[in-house]
Amino acid sequence: MSNKDEIMICERMSDIERKISESEGFKLVSRDFKSRDTIIKVGDVEIGGNSIIMVAGPCSVENHKQTLDAAIAVKAAGAKLLRGGAFKPRTSIYAFHGLGEDGLKILQMAKDATGLPIVTEVMSSEKVDVVARYADVLQIGCRNMQNYPLLLEAGLSDKPILLKRGFNSTIKEFLLAAEYIMAQGNPNVILCERGIRTFETMTRNTLDLSAVPILKKLSHLPVMVDPSHATGKRELILPMSRAAIAAGVDALIVEMHPKPDRALCDGAQSLHPGEFKELMEGLRPIAKAIGREV
Amino acid sequence: MSNKDEIMICERMSDIERKISESEGFKLVSRDFKSRDTIIKVGDVEIGGNSIIMVAGPCSVENHKQTLDAAIAVKAAGAKLLRGGAFKPRTSIYAFHGLGEDGLKILQMAKDATGLPIVTEVMSSEKVDVVARYADVLQIGCRNMQNYPLLLEAGLSDKPILLKRGFNSTIKEFLLAAEYIMAQGNPNVILCERGIRTFETMTRNTLDLSAVPILKKLSHLPVMVDPSHATGKRELILPMSRAAIAAGVDALIVEMHPKPDRALCDGAQSLHPGEFKELMEGLRPIAKAIGREV
Amino acid sequence: MSNKDEIMICERMSDIERKISESEGFKLVSRDFKSRDTIIKVGDVEIGGNSIIMVAGPCSVENHKQTLDAAIAVKAAGAKLLRGGAFKPRTSIYAFHGLGEDGLKILQMAKDATGLPIVTEVMSSEKVDVVARYADVLQIGCRNMQNYPLLLEAGLSDKPILLKRGFNSTIKEFLLAAEYIMAQGNPNVILCERGIRTFETMTRNTLDLSAVPILKKLSHLPVMVDPSHATGKRELILPMSRAAIAAGVDALIVEMHPKPDRALCDGAQSLHPGEFKELMEGLRPIAKAIGREV
Amino acid sequence: MSNKDEIMICERMSDIERKISESEGFKLVSRDFKSRDTIIKVGDVEIGGNSIIMVAGPCSVENHKQTLDAAIAVKAAGAKLLRGGAFKPRTSIYAFHGLGEDGLKILQMAKDATGLPIVTEVMSSEKVDVVARYADVLQIGCRNMQNYPLLLEAGLSDKPILLKRGFNSTIKEFLLAAEYIMAQGNPNVILCERGIRTFETMTRNTLDLSAVPILKKLSHLPVMVDPSHATGKRELILPMSRAAIAAGVDALIVEMHPKPDRALCDGAQSLHPGEFKELMEGLRPIAKAIGREV
Repeated sequence: MSNKDEIMICERMSDIERKISESEGFKLVSRDFKSRDTIIKVGDVEIGGNSIIMVAGPCSVENHKQTLDAAIAVKAAGAKLLRGGAFKPRTSIYAFHGLGEDGLKILQMAKDATGLPIVTEVMSSEKVDVVARYADVLQIGCRNMQNYPLLLEAGLSDKPILLKRGFNSTIKEFLLAAEYIMAQGNPNVILCERGIRTFETMTRNTLDLSAVPILKKLSHLPVMVDPSHATGKRELILPMSRAAIAAGVDALIVEMHPKPDRALCDGAQSLHPGEFKELMEGLRPIAKAIGREV
Repeated sequence: MSNKDEIMICERMSDIERKISESEGFKLVSRDFKSRDTIIKVGDVEIGGNSIIMVAGPCSVENHKQTLDAAIAVKAAGAKLLRGGAFKPRTSIYAFHGLGEDGLKILQMAKDATGLPIVTEVMSSEKVDVVARYADVLQIGCRNMQNYPLLLEAGLSDKPILLKRGFNSTIKEFLLAAEYIMAQGNPNVILCERGIRTFETMTRNTLDLSAVPILKKLSHLPVMVDPSHATGKRELILPMSRAAIAAGVDALIVEMHPKPDRALCDGAQSLHPGEFKELMEGLRPIAKAIGREV
Repeated sequence: MSNKDEIMICERMSDIERKISESEGFKLVSRDFKSRDTIIKVGDVEIGGNSIIMVAGPCSVENHKQTLDAAIAVKAAGAKLLRGGAFKPRTSIYAFHGLGEDGLKILQMAKDATGLPIVTEVMSSEKVDVVARYADVLQIGCRNMQNYPLLLEAGLSDKPILLKRGFNSTIKEFLLAAEYIMAQGNPNVILCERGIRTFETMTRNTLDLSAVPILKKLSHLPVMVDPSHATGKRELILPMSRAAIAAGVDALIVEMHPKPDRALCDGAQSLHPGEFKELMEGLRPIAKAIGREV
Repeated sequence: MSNKDEIMICERMSDIERKISESEGFKLVSRDFKSRDTIIKVGDVEIGGNSIIMVAGPCSVENHKQTLDAAIAVKAAGAKLLRGGAFKPRTSIYAFHGLGEDGLKILQMAKDATGLPIVTEVMSSEKVDVVARYADVLQIGCRNMQNYPLLLEAGLSDKPILLKRGFNSTIKEFLLAAEYIMAQGNPNVILCERGIRTFETMTRNTLDLSAVPILKKLSHLPVMVDPSHATGKRELILPMSRAAIAAGVDALIVEMHPKPDRALCDGAQSLHPGEFKELMEGLRPIAKAIGREV
């Protein structure tokens, strides 16, 4: 680079920095930019409309039978999308990290059998293409909320993005992460609150339900809650799902496993098929009370 | 003390310490001790029963007119108890600290005029007597949750105690603080979740609604939520109150001021009388959906 | 009260509130009010001067022998004040709460025997008189940092106050609590950082050493650190004490017990007499390196 | 996959999961695995030995002159490595994200001119190769501490890795992240504490210095502290650097900018060249006091 180029870079930078400090970087995600609620279509399913959408399935795809059993059970109970992890971020390198592309193929099989669209996680920018080949919605997990190369690549995808709030991230940082995706041209971002890290130890994280009305006010994007990861406890899924609906959420994502006691991960927070059915029944009156449906 | 006395003290201590480490100090507050829900009577009002009880009123008692206007408005909308602070803990010594006993007399006047029982804060053990002369329920604020001399004195009172969770206290510490009161002979403790301190700055504190079903499971005591102090924002009172009811709360305590813009404290989180009426109307369908009433 | 009185109260309040919002309530504690370091005299000892003062002793006063042994050991190693709890705040009501006034008498005996001034905790406003009869420095513990009646009473005492930062309190709130004491006329407040509550679980709390230079910059009051309660681990006392001195602290308060394995509380964080001697030796070169002495 | 394959996978998984729950996943990072301190060579520089190594330079590489001026200044004052960001993770997509490979080339030029090895950040697995072409040490930033594909790729590199602790990560998670890198075959990981997120707002983050002796005890890897990002305040760099050395750190990384007031990022926490020189002089006596040198 010549000195002149460098000076030009510096001047451009100052200009850009000034614009951000004016707006704090919120633009496309903001209600000021778009006042009407964004409704995201996944197959026939609409997320962000009047119906509250249930996404359910196992933490990890373990094998054909487990995944198919899960898909059939959640569909029968009224879930509209199937979740399941093929690429799993784990704190320890020695833990089970998912079946990878084999897992994606198992999800495809479950989709073919039940018609349920698939939500599954992508952990790095170079895997966006392969995951997008099988998935209907790409999930970006809480540890990757500020993985900017991944956000940028997701922004180039034509698939909707389910963006989880980092357990260490403020609501402001969460919206700025969504802005990364939208600025690349992908308007379909679902904002998912999944608990933040606090000093309280009786729950895995602290579900920050106040984030739901705040996000709905500041942004036009649909808002989801994940009570399974937020609480880490099976018996809290029903009351926290009810509370999330009462607070105005557009969708819920819940872990269900045909045999939670034998799950390869997150068994303690996964519902049995029977419990998932009861959950669905327990949510309908609350949704109806605020003029919506599950 | 003789050496022998000292040895006896030490032995006794070790014995007691051992018992606690076995039980972690939970006894009287626990569902294991008493399986049925405790219902606390305040005049004709029952807290902990099927009806969800609304407690409302201004942050501070400022004068006769303000307090009476507030009492009439909250009663008309369906609140069952009047709240108002006469002794106010404030972070700065130079802030308004309440009218003291004059404030208690104003609350008495409002009670005489409307029939609403009074909830008001007591900040130190030596003031329990004077506050109990006017109050129907003694509130212990979040800064005093571990003020043990105050807890012990409250335990000797015959008035129910509204115990607020410290904003940096775990659920375990919260229950151990209630145990202090009950161990002195006062069985009537209301547990009030009012937000915990986290890194999030868009709300004053983070309302930990997961605490509601956890407290209901571990303890037989009634559980209340204070969305006003938890969020610090007027527009979050309705969605968070709805969510609290959906999560299983027995009572709510909400700040209402006849003229919030002129309130001496907490104006930004106080509802207008009209907003309080709308709140009550907005809560009824949620309560009904779970088989309760407001 | 007449209406006119009430209006006058309101006007006065608004006036006062305005003043605070201008200054945020910092006045007497501030470097703007007094630029030179406050030096607090306790007997012959000066806290806040060039010498870094060591305060040491057991968590709880258990009996004559334990306290006297502790006093002799800490004096021999170079401590200038003896600490020991007679009134103990404990999370569980069933835990050991100290020997009360009997404990104060034991401390008096240890002072008579060794000449070491006494630092001990007072937990409520009505006990300030009795504790001040025996103590040379009154300690206000972290759970009571916002116990305003206690702060006000401490402000009327002629004894120096060792004010511990609440484990849930910001530096700003800490200074505002000290302002309560000073505004009542007591200029002798020692600010003690003792760890804040965070998500980290390997230490009991997280020692916030950055608070030391910040407090020294904002205020003229002497600053102390308590590595024992902050870390809860014996092996961290030496490195964290060294770090505190390097960060500019004026005093340290450390738990030492003649027989830590048999301590009634906090045994895991208490040093053996031999370890305390090593601690003192380990600190001297650091103090010397910054032109001070221990 | 056949059913038999699937069953084998499941059995293998259970086996692996069991092993982890036994060991919690610490193996190669642990003192139990390797008792002697790891010393990492970067050119002639040894990190983890008796000398405390200073790494310094600007937050971002902005142009040739700024980077060369910085390199000359930090070398003159005694720094052993040059830091500078070419790929910058930023909360807002509209902020300055660094000069990319052009920035790496500028760093190369500064290295050629001064002989200082280069530390610079890599943000994604696919950039490891290009960054490693210029850098002597690859930095993984706090937002990427749990970016597992990046950790795995870094584990395949032959360059030492400077791993920053996530600002909301526990010490345990930090060590498990280092285990990812080591398990791939790269034994050269530097653990860098850079502040954790707490409720305190007077500093950008809260520097957790207790982590230093804990990491040194649990692991054989060298430990570094970054006081610039931890505190966000220029005037805290000296006291916190002194404290870090007193706590036992092996290296420090500090932001220095030839003209902090005109820096494209982090100006408020960057030292002037003169201040950096004073910092170095201020650290030497502390290092000497514990038998080390800067």
